[in-house]
Amino acid sequence: MKNFADRLLEAVARKGTPCVVGLDPRVEGMPPFIAGAARESGSLEQIGEAIIAFHRNVIDAVAPLVPAVKLQIAFYEQYGLPGLRAFAETVGAAQAAGLLVIADVKRNDIGATAEAYASAFLGQDGTGLPESGFGVDCVTVSPFLGRDSLLPFVQRCRANGRGIFVLVKTSNPGSADVQNRAGGDGLTVSESLAAMVDELGSDLVGDYGYSPIGAVVGATFPAEAEELRRRMPKALILVPGYGAQGGSADGAVASFNPDGLGGVINASRSITYREASDTADERALRDAVRAATARMVGDIDAALKRRDRTPA
Amino acid sequence: MKNFADRLLEAVARKGTPCVVGLDPRVEGMPPFIAGAARESGSLEQIGEAIIAFHRNVIDAVAPLVPAVKLQIAFYEQYGLPGLRAFAETVGAAQAAGLLVIADVKRNDIGATAEAYASAFLGQDGTGLPESGFGVDCVTVSPFLGRDSLLPFVQRCRANGRGIFVLVKTSNPGSADVQNRAGGDGLTVSESLAAMVDELGSDLVGDYGYSPIGAVVGATFPAEAEELRRRMPKALILVPGYGAQGGSADGAVASFNPDGLGGVINASRSITYREASDTADERALRDAVRAATARMVGDIDAALKRRDRTPA
Repeated sequence: MKNFADRLLEAVARKGTPCVVGLDPRVEGMPPFIAGAARESGSLEQIGEAIIAFHRNVIDAVAPLVPAVKLQIAFYEQYGLPGLRAFAETVGAAQAAGLLVIADVKRNDIGATAEAYASAFLGQDGTGLPESGFGVDCVTVSPFLGRDSLLPFVQRCRANGRGIFVLVKTSNPGSADVQNRAGGDGLTVSESLAAMVDELGSDLVGDYGYSPIGAVVGATFPAEAEELRRRMPKALILVPGYGAQGGSADGAVASFNPDGLGGVINASRSITYREASDTADERALRDAVRAATARMVGDIDAALKRRDRTPA
Repeated sequence: MKNFADRLLEAVARKGTPCVVGLDPRVEGMPPFIAGAARESGSLEQIGEAIIAFHRNVIDAVAPLVPAVKLQIAFYEQYGLPGLRAFAETVGAAQAAGLLVIADVKRNDIGATAEAYASAFLGQDGTGLPESGFGVDCVTVSPFLGRDSLLPFVQRCRANGRGIFVLVKTSNPGSADVQNRAGGDGLTVSESLAAMVDELGSDLVGDYGYSPIGAVVGATFPAEAEELRRRMPKALILVPGYGAQGGSADGAVASFNPDGLGGVINASRSITYREASDTADERALRDAVRAATARMVGDIDAALKRRDRTPA
């Protein structure tokens, strides 16, 4: 399969925006006409069905507008097996609608265990095992266990045309505890990880000039984001933290390259759990999601244009 | 529910060993009489059934010998929904046999997402949601996102009598990349995390003198393990890396306190995928697992006694 970085940037060019919509199910925030009965029954099966119905509407609304969706798997896992069935069905519905799928799983482990996670999410590769049913285009991975823990994922990116976003700098206040510690070389953990991401992706750079070995860099620390981008000029960057987490549009584009490319920006709650929560039928739900997505697309587009005019 | 540290140490005292058996399904290593048909068919459903049958035998063999089992969830996720159904059924079978269950999930994320992971694995707490079906006694968590990301888990430990093992020093060579970086205060990332674990557990210390806010410290770096133990004297420590990963019995007990308590030591492949792989029926399988477990128990016991006699 084609290089994931090219697949993603082609989709960004086609849709004209680097915005990505998060599908993070919160049954308590879904409109009553979809989730009221499931909430009352407290049945995981019914909750799973409500998630699928809700996401079919969201996907229908956003598919013409954005290149990809991001699924935060924790919100599915909390609903057990029916939740994970809803994860698999949401992935299938999104891909059928022509969207790329990023699974925000923040998995990792060592050796054979990292291989198993790669098999779960990035496709089998010569293992002779059947596909898991959880296969996506791209996952987030944690680098806490070091470079060797990332290699099985990098190998699947190469073999199967998939991508990873390595956590480099997260958007929460506590991210400093580990990520900002400076080593003897004067580099923070985040800076040394940015160099590692750059190195791991160096021979996977695609036609658009980017590598599928990407990084997560939150929207809430723009100055650090610019510095980290300099250390990994060819990495795709996934930017969380815009919207509900308080990151501004200007903060969200801080790690973008001067060509306006370089990554995708995610918003979840601000798209799917504000106006959409109070809608009374499918048409109103889709309209609300479409309007919220269009606002985000406009907001980010304006920030990218402001950045164009700002001398570096 | 009672403090998890007390529940675990009571079970350690009752069984007379800190050894824990890992249930990490590898369908390619299971004996043909259990997994042959599943391997040939390549059906995830059949693989899931084989995992359950295999683990029922292992649990039957080890339940009288050890206090707990550890399930590495990656090996279940790679088999999709049927794999995760096997995870839930294995958890249920182990608890029914009186074993405590540690799920090695290495999850974490920020804020509401960390809450969702805690809901998935450590029980609901006033959220009004149904239980996920994946609930266990204890999970491993990643500290890469910092102290605030750990708080939802600590809260569930307090409210629901559960435990966590925070990754502090993992057993792989690449663990140095992030974990050994030294900050301006002269502490490595691992050392600063040990201090954080100590602080987070300080008001949860139970009757045995230990806290359910524990740490993962691999068997492969004994000198570092002793140093890390000094920084978190009351933390339960989960020691991976003994056996197949090359850690010795003496390395595995390096982080134990002079009272011979303080943690649990896990082995997976060396118990369930050596002699057991070639067995021809259930009786032979259980005998092989029992023998391998008894060898590990004896090996660790001898190391604890050697340590007793070694002047500090």
